[in-house]
Amino acid sequence: MNSPVAIDGGRARARELGLVPGRLPTGPANAISDVPGIRVGHATVVAGADIRTGVTAIVHDDLLIGAAALPAGLSVFNGFGKMVGTTQVAELGRLETPVLLTATLSVFLVADALLSYLHELRWGGERHGGDEPGTLNPVVAETNDGYLSDIWARPITADHVRMALDNAAAGGLIAEGCVGAGTGTSALGFKAGIGTASRIVSLATGPVTLGALVQANFGGELTVLGTPFPAAEALAAAGIADAGHGFGGSSGGGASRLSGGSCVIVLATDAALESRQLERVASRAFAGMARTGSDFSGRSGDYALAFSTAARRATAGPDEPVPHSDLDLLFRAAIEATEEAILNSLFMATTTRGFRGHVRRAVPLDDVRARLGIAQSDDTVTGR
Amino acid sequence: MNSPVAIDGGRARARELGLVPGRLPTGPANAISDVPGIRVGHATVVAGADIRTGVTAIVHDDLLIGAAALPAGLSVFNGFGKMVGTTQVAELGRLETPVLLTATLSVFLVADALLSYLHELRWGGERHGGDEPGTLNPVVAETNDGYLSDIWARPITADHVRMALDNAAAGGLIAEGCVGAGTGTSALGFKAGIGTASRIVSLATGPVTLGALVQANFGGELTVLGTPFPAAEALAAAGIADAGHGFGGSSGGGASRLSGGSCVIVLATDAALESRQLERVASRAFAGMARTGSDFSGRSGDYALAFSTAARRATAGPDEPVPHSDLDLLFRAAIEATEEAILNSLFMATTTRGFRGHVRRAVPLDDVRARLGIAQSDDTVTGR
Amino acid sequence: MNSPVAIDGGRARARELGLVPGRLPTGPANAISDVPGIRVGHATVVAGADIRTGVTAIVHDDLLIGAAALPAGLSVFNGFGKMVGTTQVAELGRLETPVLLTATLSVFLVADALLSYLHELRWGGERHGGDEPGTLNPVVAETNDGYLSDIWARPITADHVRMALDNAAAGGLIAEGCVGAGTGTSALGFKAGIGTASRIVSLATGPVTLGALVQANFGGELTVLGTPFPAAEALAAAGIADAGHGFGGSSGGGASRLSGGSCVIVLATDAALESRQLERVASRAFAGMARTGSDFSGRSGDYALAFSTAARRATAGPDEPVPHSDLDLLFRAAIEATEEAILNSLFMATTTRGFRGHVRRAVPLDDVRARLGIAQSDDTVTGR
Amino acid sequence: MNSPVAIDGGRARARELGLVPGRLPTGPANAISDVPGIRVGHATVVAGADIRTGVTAIVHDDLLIGAAALPAGLSVFNGFGKMVGTTQVAELGRLETPVLLTATLSVFLVADALLSYLHELRWGGERHGGDEPGTLNPVVAETNDGYLSDIWARPITADHVRMALDNAAAGGLIAEGCVGAGTGTSALGFKAGIGTASRIVSLATGPVTLGALVQANFGGELTVLGTPFPAAEALAAAGIADAGHGFGGSSGGGASRLSGGSCVIVLATDAALESRQLERVASRAFAGMARTGSDFSGRSGDYALAFSTAARRATAGPDEPVPHSDLDLLFRAAIEATEEAILNSLFMATTTRGFRGHVRRAVPLDDVRARLGIAQSDDTVTGR
Repeated sequence: MNSPVAIDGGRARARELGLVPGRLPTGPANAISDVPGIRVGHATVVAGADIRTGVTAIVHDDLLIGAAALPAGLSVFNGFGKMVGTTQVAELGRLETPVLLTATLSVFLVADALLSYLHELRWGGERHGGDEPGTLNPVVAETNDGYLSDIWARPITADHVRMALDNAAAGGLIAEGCVGAGTGTSALGFKAGIGTASRIVSLATGPVTLGALVQANFGGELTVLGTPFPAAEALAAAGIADAGHGFGGSSGGGASRLSGGSCVIVLATDAALESRQLERVASRAFAGMARTGSDFSGRSGDYALAFSTAARRATAGPDEPVPHSDLDLLFRAAIEATEEAILNSLFMATTTRGFRGHVRRAVPLDDVRARLGIAQSDDTVTGR
Repeated sequence: MNSPVAIDGGRARARELGLVPGRLPTGPANAISDVPGIRVGHATVVAGADIRTGVTAIVHDDLLIGAAALPAGLSVFNGFGKMVGTTQVAELGRLETPVLLTATLSVFLVADALLSYLHELRWGGERHGGDEPGTLNPVVAETNDGYLSDIWARPITADHVRMALDNAAAGGLIAEGCVGAGTGTSALGFKAGIGTASRIVSLATGPVTLGALVQANFGGELTVLGTPFPAAEALAAAGIADAGHGFGGSSGGGASRLSGGSCVIVLATDAALESRQLERVASRAFAGMARTGSDFSGRSGDYALAFSTAARRATAGPDEPVPHSDLDLLFRAAIEATEEAILNSLFMATTTRGFRGHVRRAVPLDDVRARLGIAQSDDTVTGR
Repeated sequence: MNSPVAIDGGRARARELGLVPGRLPTGPANAISDVPGIRVGHATVVAGADIRTGVTAIVHDDLLIGAAALPAGLSVFNGFGKMVGTTQVAELGRLETPVLLTATLSVFLVADALLSYLHELRWGGERHGGDEPGTLNPVVAETNDGYLSDIWARPITADHVRMALDNAAAGGLIAEGCVGAGTGTSALGFKAGIGTASRIVSLATGPVTLGALVQANFGGELTVLGTPFPAAEALAAAGIADAGHGFGGSSGGGASRLSGGSCVIVLATDAALESRQLERVASRAFAGMARTGSDFSGRSGDYALAFSTAARRATAGPDEPVPHSDLDLLFRAAIEATEEAILNSLFMATTTRGFRGHVRRAVPLDDVRARLGIAQSDDTVTGR
Repeated sequence: MNSPVAIDGGRARARELGLVPGRLPTGPANAISDVPGIRVGHATVVAGADIRTGVTAIVHDDLLIGAAALPAGLSVFNGFGKMVGTTQVAELGRLETPVLLTATLSVFLVADALLSYLHELRWGGERHGGDEPGTLNPVVAETNDGYLSDIWARPITADHVRMALDNAAAGGLIAEGCVGAGTGTSALGFKAGIGTASRIVSLATGPVTLGALVQANFGGELTVLGTPFPAAEALAAAGIADAGHGFGGSSGGGASRLSGGSCVIVLATDAALESRQLERVASRAFAGMARTGSDFSGRSGDYALAFSTAARRATAGPDEPVPHSDLDLLFRAAIEATEEAILNSLFMATTTRGFRGHVRRAVPLDDVRARLGIAQSDDTVTGR
């Protein structure tokens, strides 16, 4: 799970830099895997000069074995994307399979391979046809990593899908940055990738965890806890002359390509929510994305999927199972965890050279420290 | 493009039986191909005892060559399905590729193969990667033909996709019934398949054509111009004892499986509509489906996609390009053409034996004639 | 609760005519009030030559007293209408107030009066302002009865609203036809009004009731259990020459006005459904509307609202509280009850003369009997 | 159009403080009225100790006279609100009337009064009934100003509506802060109100203007160009102990009430967009709202309506009338103008005492200057 084509090193997560987005406490690993049962795995696909891509899998035993479809809600901020499985999640409010992330034009092959994997896992690969298991609704999202990777080569194979799922099933730490589906992605003018974070909130019924994992690949001007760090090429792409902010600098070569992309945000929680509530939780992720400086381009397919591992709803009162105030805490958790996951996806990513010699530079962390007044010490800066 | 495993013959379209759904005139072929530039092709996949499936392609030159994305609107009545390409059509209101129909679990491989086909066609298969052609949004719909075909075998290949598209590009008559994506489908308790029909309406700006093509695969009780023809197994599936209507009879063997399925309805028109209007046209297709007796089961993924071949809008008045009264005529055309296309999909389909020996019987046309009082003559029965 | 300006009498409900839409059994009164706790009241507003309108209220104790917000789902087939309260029902999936129906331009005054009524009922009319009771989301739907009533006179007053609600609270039989919000409405070329029906279905957990109440006011060609009865003016409005069906005849005076309108459908059930499921139930009502011959004009605002009186969900299994098969039965009930409620709204309505001398004729029941072959006996005709 | 109950003065717009949200240039007045033809008027309703509310009207000649329905798109981030006119705007993509803003429980009376006003204006108040003018779809939004005003008193009258519309028709400068529908609103823990801003963008076809007007009334922690200014009571409402940021201080009396509310955002542009594009523009407003620190509470009804004054679309190329890059500029304009309009609504508002003695303090501008390092000079701070 190495970072490919690393030109510079010394990466760190936001909190390791002393940056604290929001006010809610994190889970122990500050990752989506803080939600009990959630595990993540990657297959990083780097080949030759032109392929920088991969697959990331988010799994839960219920989704692997098919023991239960989990309550889920999808929020589409800008539907310019090829995500698979959307209408069934919207109709039934249920998630039946692990969630996979990959490169845009590979999404269909990945969905096909996910079917094979689950058929093998659940039924030993035997044909059951018209009787059982009926159909399955694979959920696979994608972003366009075409600046650094040759998307039309469609290099992802069923083996990569299997590797990501096997790695996820095995559990362990979650690699961030240039791994899996984040190997070739960019955000806010810098190299980005996969990032994750979590929050713990105290509901009326006790503490619950909400975790976020993002595949960050969108435009705009990087904003760290309110401080803008515009990349030179991000400004150029927006047709704006850099007024001398002094940040960014040369993009290092090749034509810039900051349009398109997508941001895929996956939220998991052990709070016992129904699908309508999960849709509302999911929509708040875009507020976290906004805080990082997204320009919400019309060419960016921005999707947030939230699901609950609590398939069995705790029996609650007659009127509204989850009080408004509890939902508001979960909304806050979704905003904060998404913001931090995106920052992590950037801070952990390394400068990458890929397709046609294009280079996307990593966020220079020393500059971030300097601009935010963080010494190499225990200082922290708290945002919101 | 033969009808596989034909046990009985002598099929006929609704109008050949003297049945006239609705009041609007049809186009010359009473088919979606009456819309200038629209062509349809099938790949019928029959193998051994257990595979009865296929691919159907609906093409237009602009969609093949990529000269223009066509205005399009999607209406989802019940989203229990795996249709690919939905969020981008909803967001942008544009269709970029031919529309393919196939079997449920093959939808992803078919989408993947459609990408390959178009890449070869448009750019000679050369890699263009990050610069051009960017991405493409393949639109592929599906229904579950698992009663007659082994869906988990996923027998559709890229060659089948190519065959359907090549056949479509070649044009010619449109086969109906047990062909292409309709090879293994059932509707209303009987063998169904692909059906098509068209209508001509006179707008303020002149006559336009609207055509429908359906992949019929849903439950309910067959209703022909208002007269019910419940299949015995349809009644049984609904937990209703047949009160002696005398229609239907034994299903011929095997356990019935009337749940699930889907109805995919594709509408094409040369009327210059924008995407919002096309969404509204698409939604009316479900009224045509209702007239045939659909029970709109929650397990049936029912989708209607409407698109216009008029990428360049005629310049119109300042306020509302298409008058309400013109839209109402197009709504009527969508209802009528969908109803007739579904009837054609049933009347042209032949009794089929497939997976695990399951048999789905064709609608007995003699009985339809008898019940509706149609002699073997020139009599007609007009509905609505 | 009399029928105003009755020119002919002798009206009957569909079942009294021997017509049986669908197969499911009805509740004891075949009315929405078969759902325990549901009561309906009308205020019929007839004044001078030009006012033929009113208010209809559907109440439940929980909605009057505010003891519980009831799970609710809204389905909008064509949003050309002024219904009030829609976004909050869609967001929260909850209904907080009784549902009122009225004339299009009076919907705002009626919503305002509903607030006053509930404030008086719940808090004695005292001001509570910023602390409690917070806000309320009145739900009021409307149709355009402007052919028979002077809508710009906006004759509905807060007293009419109070009267309808008081009548509802008092319970009793539900008047149909030209009463309340149906006083001035038309459907399918004939005089229509308010209609109701119910169905009983046996779920896994036991029998439940689903009831429908409609305010019918839409275009198309009347279809009774599959047999078309086109009104002469309906054909004329659609630009279609009557091919000699012999039904309908002169509209009796004045310019026809068949466009616009709306169909408001309210479904209530004691099945323990959540809001997403109720949205799905609501959408099926339009299939019932399709069976009666609606043309789903773009100028007709067609809305279906479904709510459950079971605010406390029965504890169910871990995965899906209501099985697919149970939902399908409720879908069937929604289709059948809506179809029958619309027929009742027509068959119970009487020929009405109103605004500017316009006359809308009642459906001639003798002709319906004759065409359907029903003697004045115990014969029945069963549809679907 | 004075600020009622002003306790402190010396207010200033964001740019007067040296704050520059975003990078795009503003129009001449930095207000929604920079869009040619757009005018705004207020009726400020202050009575006794308990009433702090009002009406704000946004007009355009086409909407007053009814010469043309303007293309419009609505985006609902959180539908917990009573906005009137939503389903018809969503269905037809057209705005038929001026847009009014008011207090939550007065929205229905205001809609009713808007009908009267337009009927008088357009047709001299004569009855036209069933023939013409048919119906009208008034669009009225609201927020809950119940902390400072007695909402159940429902003090708004038809005269107030007339006053706001007459003031708007007269044109002139747009008052901000505690005026009209912003008289009693709060945002981010401080007194807020009405704010406005504009942006100019250069499309392929030339420069166009986009203006925003907000009724700000929502929760969260005030963030000014990235710097947080949490009000003490905002923190308390979120169950968070203030960690000594030193900002905010005592709320001045009474129980805090920071939940609920709403943010209504109206965007106008002279860019020739169709309704689908306007929906997409509208959705971006929420990113601007996110930048100001909104917590997107589930009890806040957040709505954005965008409309175009260019009813007649410029004839464009065949494929996509507005290029993606042009839309992206308009998205950026929507984000920036909304952020600045919200800041203006806060910075121009004055500390207000209202219902039950509740006091909502104005943002202390000196502290903002100090924290952001702005001397009383020409310094500016630029965000994004």
